Amino acid sequence: MTSYWCELAWLGGPRATQGVVIEVAGGRIKAIVSDQLAPPPGATPLRGLTLPALANAHSHAFHRALRGRTQDERGTFWIWRDLMYRVAAVLDPDNYHRLARAAFAEMALAGIGVVGEFHYIHHRPGGDAYDDPNAMGLSLAAAARDAGIRLTLLDALYLHGGFAADAPFGYAPLMEEQTRFSDGSVTEWADRVDDLAAMIAGPITKVGAAVHSVRAVDPTSIGTAARWAAGNQAPFHVHVSEQPAENRQCFEVLGRTPIAVISDAGGLGPDTTLIHATHASGKDIVMVGEAGAICCLCPTTERDLADGIGPSEALAAAGARLCVGSDSHAVVDLFEETRAVELGQRVTKLERGVHNTEALAEMATRNGYRSLGWKEGGCLTPGSLADFTTIGLDSVRLAGADTANALASAIFAASGADVHHLVVGGRPVVVGGNHVSIDIASELDAIIPKLMTS
Amino acid sequence: MTSYWCELAWLGGPRATQGVVIEVAGGRIKAIVSDQLAPPPGATPLRGLTLPALANAHSHAFHRALRGRTQDERGTFWIWRDLMYRVAAVLDPDNYHRLARAAFAEMALAGIGVVGEFHYIHHRPGGDAYDDPNAMGLSLAAAARDAGIRLTLLDALYLHGGFAADAPFGYAPLMEEQTRFSDGSVTEWADRVDDLAAMIAGPITKVGAAVHSVRAVDPTSIGTAARWAAGNQAPFHVHVSEQPAENRQCFEVLGRTPIAVISDAGGLGPDTTLIHATHASGKDIVMVGEAGAICCLCPTTERDLADGIGPSEALAAAGARLCVGSDSHAVVDLFEETRAVELGQRVTKLERGVHNTEALAEMATRNGYRSLGWKEGGCLTPGSLADFTTIGLDSVRLAGADTANALASAIFAASGADVHHLVVGGRPVVVGGNHVSIDIASELDAIIPKLMTS
Repeated sequence: MTSYWCELAWLGGPRATQGVVIEVAGGRIKAIVSDQLAPPPGATPLRGLTLPALANAHSHAFHRALRGRTQDERGTFWIWRDLMYRVAAVLDPDNYHRLARAAFAEMALAGIGVVGEFHYIHHRPGGDAYDDPNAMGLSLAAAARDAGIRLTLLDALYLHGGFAADAPFGYAPLMEEQTRFSDGSVTEWADRVDDLAAMIAGPITKVGAAVHSVRAVDPTSIGTAARWAAGNQAPFHVHVSEQPAENRQCFEVLGRTPIAVISDAGGLGPDTTLIHATHASGKDIVMVGEAGAICCLCPTTERDLADGIGPSEALAAAGARLCVGSDSHAVVDLFEETRAVELGQRVTKLERGVHNTEALAEMATRNGYRSLGWKEGGCLTPGSLADFTTIGLDSVRLAGADTANALASAIFAASGADVHHLVVGGRPVVVGGNHVSIDIASELDAIIPKLMTS
Repeated sequence: MTSYWCELAWLGGPRATQGVVIEVAGGRIKAIVSDQLAPPPGATPLRGLTLPALANAHSHAFHRALRGRTQDERGTFWIWRDLMYRVAAVLDPDNYHRLARAAFAEMALAGIGVVGEFHYIHHRPGGDAYDDPNAMGLSLAAAARDAGIRLTLLDALYLHGGFAADAPFGYAPLMEEQTRFSDGSVTEWADRVDDLAAMIAGPITKVGAAVHSVRAVDPTSIGTAARWAAGNQAPFHVHVSEQPAENRQCFEVLGRTPIAVISDAGGLGPDTTLIHATHASGKDIVMVGEAGAICCLCPTTERDLADGIGPSEALAAAGARLCVGSDSHAVVDLFEETRAVELGQRVTKLERGVHNTEALAEMATRNGYRSLGWKEGGCLTPGSLADFTTIGLDSVRLAGADTANALASAIFAASGADVHHLVVGGRPVVVGGNHVSIDIASELDAIIPKLMTS
C-alpha cells in the first residue's frame, strides 16, 4: 500500500477539496480519505492540485515531427496533408518507436495518463507487410510502455484513396503514400488486429478498432469493423466531418452525411468515438446524442488546420459525451485543449460559461478514459485506476488561486508546464516536473531532424 | 559596453540567424554582429532564440486578480463587467501598487519588455481626488519600475455612464462604481495628465492619452483628448467595438459606428491605437487602413469575454498595423496571444497562413512598441532600445526546432514558461527563468486574496 497526500484534489463536482489522502495498491485506488489537513506519516505529499490523470483521446504520435514546420505557407488542410504524408513515408519500426516514445513522454510531462493512438501506418512503403505485420503497432506499444503511460492502440482500417464520384464503387484507388496504410480488406485487417491484441493487451495496453474515415472505408467495411469492435468489447473510433469537403463528397457519392453513413453501417453507439465532428449537421447531432456516442474534439489542431469550431454545445445538449485530444500535437497541453472547447463556443455564441468548469474537467479526464475503453479510470474514487496528476499552484500562472477556484484556474489558466507529478497504474511517471526515465527534449532533438531530412 | 551572444536571434525577416552578438551601451543596441558561431570572450551567452522584447500593448493590471474567478457562470461580457467593477472598487494606491508590481513582473517573466497600461481608476471611490490626484498613476509607474519593464501609462478619459438614447445629450450619468474613473471634464483630465507626465516621464516611462470608449466619452471630448495627444506627441488609445451592443447603441444615439465617431472627432491617425475593433464594419476597416492607424487585438481576452474574433486579415489588408495585448490577463502569454490572431482567422476562413510568421512576430514586438510610442524599440538593430528576450529551445514544447523553423516554432508552440531571459534598457530583468528581484507568485498569493474578500 502506498499513500499520497494531496494539498488539494478534485474528487468530482464544481470544486476541489482540501487535504485528501489517496491510498493505492495493485495499480488501483483503494481508499480516498478527506479532511486530512497535513500529510500523515509515510504519505508522499503532493503540493498543488491533484486531478485524475488527463486523457488524450486522439493522437497521431508522428505528427510531433511537424511542429513549427508547416505554419508559414498560405494553404489548406489538404496542402498540410501532403507535408504530413512526407513524414509518414519515412517511418520504420525503429524510428517510429523512438519518435513515439518521446512524444508519449511529452504527454506524460503534460499530465496525460492515457493516450488513444490512432494508428494507420501499418506496412512498408508500397504496402508489403513487415516480417511481423504488426511491427509498427508493436513499436507504438513499446513506446507507450517506455514512456509509462496507458495506451489504447486504435488500429485503423484504411482501404481507399478517397471519394471519387466517377469510379465504379465511388472510391479512388489508394495514392502511393497511402499504400502502407492498407491491409487490402477488412478481413485481413481484423486478422492482423486479432494477432496484435493477443500480443500487447495487458494492464496498461488495450487494442481498439478504428475506421480512418468514410473517405477511406466503404460502408460495408465500416459495418464489419464496428462488429469486430462490439464482439471484442473494444472502443471504436472514426475521423468524421473535419472538413466541409468530406461532407460534400460523401453526400455526392453516398447521398448522406458521413455520420449518417456510420450510423447506417451500425457504427454509432455508446462505445463509438467520433473524432472532430466539426461540420456535423443538426440531424447528425441528434443521431449522435440518441446513440449516446462520444465526440472527441481536438480544438488546438482544429484551429491549426483551419477546420473550424465544432458544435460542442449542441452535441452535449443532444446527449453526446465530449472528450479531447491533442491530435497533431501542434501543442500538447490538455489545459489549453480543454479551455479551447469552451472558448470556441464563446467566440461563436458571444456568451460565456457554455460548458461549466466541472463539465470541462470531465472532458479532460473521465470522458476520455471512457472513450478509450478504460471505464474505471479518470476519476478519484475507490476502485478506480490509480492514475492521477498534480499541478503546482505556485507558478505565476496559477498564483492567487484558492480552494474555491483552483479547478477553474487550472482549466482556464494552467499550462502543461505546471504539471509536477504523474502517477499511472500506481507507478510514478513524472516526479518534480521531470520524467522518471526519459530525457525527452534530447530524444526529440535527436530523432526529428533525421526524419525531416531523410 | 556589455555584450550578449545569441545562439539564435531574430533580426527581422522570416527566419532566425545563428550566432549573433548584441553590443549594448547606454540602454541602446550599439552593434549587431552576425556569424559569431561561438560566444566571444566576455559576452554573456544566451542559449535559445533571442527576440526583441515582446510588447503588451493593452493591459488592465488589476484584472489579474480575477483570473479563474469569473469562469463558471453562464453569462455575458456585461455580467463579467460587474465582477470586474467589484475589484476596481477596493483598489487604493497601496494595494494597486502591490498588485500591479506582481502583474508587471509576471509580464517580464513572459518576455514582455513594455506594457501599455490603460488606466482609468484615478480617484477615491465616490470620485473625490486623492491628496495627489495622480496617486494611482504614480503607483502604476512605481510598479513598472520595480518590475523592471518599460511602461506607457495610457491615462484614460472617462466621463459618462454609457449611451442612453432618452437622455438629453445621449449619455447616462456615471454609475456609482464609475465615479472614481472620472475627472469631470476633459479639461480637468488634461490638467491632471500634464502633471502626471511632468512627474513620471523618463527613460523607461511615458504617458499616453486614452479615451475609455465612445460609451464613456462624447465626441467633442474625444476630439479634445486627441488634440492633447497630438500636441504632446503621445500615443492615443481607445477601446472600440468590442461588443455588438456598443455598435448598436452608438448607432442609435450618434447615427454612426464607434470608429466613425472617433474618425469624425479627429481621433484616427497613425499614432492612434484602436483596442479590439472586433466588430468593426467593412467601412470602418477602410477608414482605419486609410488613417494608417494601429489595431490592438487581445484574442485571449476576446475569447474569454465572448467578444468574438476580430477581422485581423481585413484590417491588415486595408493598411492597419496590428499589435497584441493580454488585456484582462486571463493568461499572460504573448506567444499564445499572437498565434491566436492567426488561428482565429483559420477557424473562420478555413484557410491557413493568413498572417505569416514574420507578420505575427512583428505584431508581438515592433508594432506594439510603435503603438506605445517607443518608435525605436521592438527590433534588434543598431540604435534601437536594448530590449530583448530569450526563449529556451530545450523544453519539450520546442525541442526538435532548428534554425529554419525556430521562429515559427516559437510563435506557434512556445509558452511564456519558455522565457529564460529578458533585458530592458540594457538591464537584465529575468535571468535563468527568474525575475531578478521579485518573488512574483508569493506577491500574487499575498495580495489577491485580500482584494477578493474585502
